[in-house]
Amino acid sequence: MKLNKYVDISTLDREAKKDYIDRHSAFLNCEAEAEAGKKFKVNVRVGDEYMHPDDADHYIAYVQLWNGEKMLAQANFIEGAMGNAPQNLEVDFYIVPTKNMKLTAYAFCTKHGLWESDMKEVVVK
Amino acid sequence: MKLNKYVDISTLDREAKKDYIDRHSAFLNCEAEAEAGKKFKVNVRVGDEYMHPDDADHYIAYVQLWNGEKMLAQANFIEGAMGNAPQNLEVDFYIVPTKNMKLTAYAFCTKHGLWESDMKEVVVK
Amino acid sequence: MKLNKYVDISTLDREAKKDYIDRHSAFLNCEAEAEAGKKFKVNVRVGDEYMHPDDADHYIAYVQLWNGEKMLAQANFIEGAMGNAPQNLEVDFYIVPTKNMKLTAYAFCTKHGLWESDMKEVVVK
Amino acid sequence: MKLNKYVDISTLDREAKKDYIDRHSAFLNCEAEAEAGKKFKVNVRVGDEYMHPDDADHYIAYVQLWNGEKMLAQANFIEGAMGNAPQNLEVDFYIVPTKNMKLTAYAFCTKHGLWESDMKEVVVK
Repeated sequence: MKLNKYVDISTLDREAKKDYIDRHSAFLNCEAEAEAGKKFKVNVRVGDEYMHPDDADHYIAYVQLWNGEKMLAQANFIEGAMGNAPQNLEVDFYIVPTKNMKLTAYAFCTKHGLWESDMKEVVVK
Repeated sequence: MKLNKYVDISTLDREAKKDYIDRHSAFLNCEAEAEAGKKFKVNVRVGDEYMHPDDADHYIAYVQLWNGEKMLAQANFIEGAMGNAPQNLEVDFYIVPTKNMKLTAYAFCTKHGLWESDMKEVVVK
Repeated sequence: MKLNKYVDISTLDREAKKDYIDRHSAFLNCEAEAEAGKKFKVNVRVGDEYMHPDDADHYIAYVQLWNGEKMLAQANFIEGAMGNAPQNLEVDFYIVPTKNMKLTAYAFCTKHGLWESDMKEVVVK
Repeated sequence: MKLNKYVDISTLDREAKKDYIDRHSAFLNCEAEAEAGKKFKVNVRVGDEYMHPDDADHYIAYVQLWNGEKMLAQANFIEGAMGNAPQNLEVDFYIVPTKNMKLTAYAFCTKHGLWESDMKEVVVK
């Protein structure tokens, strides 16, 4: 498989392409700094400006959260969890950092494969 | 396997038993009412007053969220995600209801099996 | 949720009921004895005489293998893996026992919930 | 994360490097031809000539099977399933092809990340 990556959609011309890339991309939302040994919330959301279908044969089946080469957590969804209508699937993971992190998230669409978020560095004090 | 269930720990005498039951139990936190077709946040937390270890050979490996007989989502964790120290693992799922729900959560401990939360009815309008 | 269990279908009258119960039930196939420290094959199959659909909105989404209160492995499937036609989904797990085991398997149908196999004792020498 | 790939270990000098690469790599074993609509067995095995530890803090936590950009199945393991000793973890998936496939497998080590197998084309008649 190939690892699809987000492209800044403001640089794209075609509406269909903006929509396709945005609605599949994983976005990581979290603070830039964390405290060692304390719970730290990381929101993973699929799609920023566009929503992905939640059809039985076409939906987001899982998201993963990684720190460098180590996967921390994976959330699997059964179709219908998003109400069988377009949505921005999201999940909040709570992790406990011990040192600086390089977080990345992934989203898997049952028709269009795996999508990687931008990497986000978190300073842990 | 057997489905372990939460017991009100204030009814228990022994401290070790309170700790054992509380730290393994899944707790569902969400509003009692939801709007049909809108995202609805459901927090699943393992342990209320006591924390569970996150040791390599003894940790919470997954939590599941069910609506009646249908599983909606499952989040798997790799040991270390909680910092290898006692914690209350938690995750926020965002689901989209279409009608009234009967939610239940489960937590799986790699040493002490599967634990079922109380069931929570959510009225969907 | 409730744990549905296999019922000997030869004791049932109605064809629809035999079909419903059989096609959802998990069946464990393995030797009755195993050698400690050696790989041991355990086949988990869903349905014995009847097949389950593999429709996008109705399929077997996962099977689990447990030894007593410890889950050993879980295999998740994306719809379509069974060709979008009725089948007996199966998977072979290879585990390495160290002492006597009490194996149980589970199958989850996206419409009809969780089904538990009969428990199988394996003597480990 | 990066996708580690198998390198023919006979081209490598250092024993430690051969061992490291071989024991993490996923290997796909299946026939080169399949019949449309019939169950087709695909063995995924981690390591060919070398074995990977099954320690609580260092083990193979999952393998995935993909056809092109579509994941078909993922098997997750709890540490100890391989007996807490070095082994070649393996699993047999049974899938039902409808047209030619390009299969790839992945293995995830909790310390050393994700490893991709060689791609295997299967002609489906």
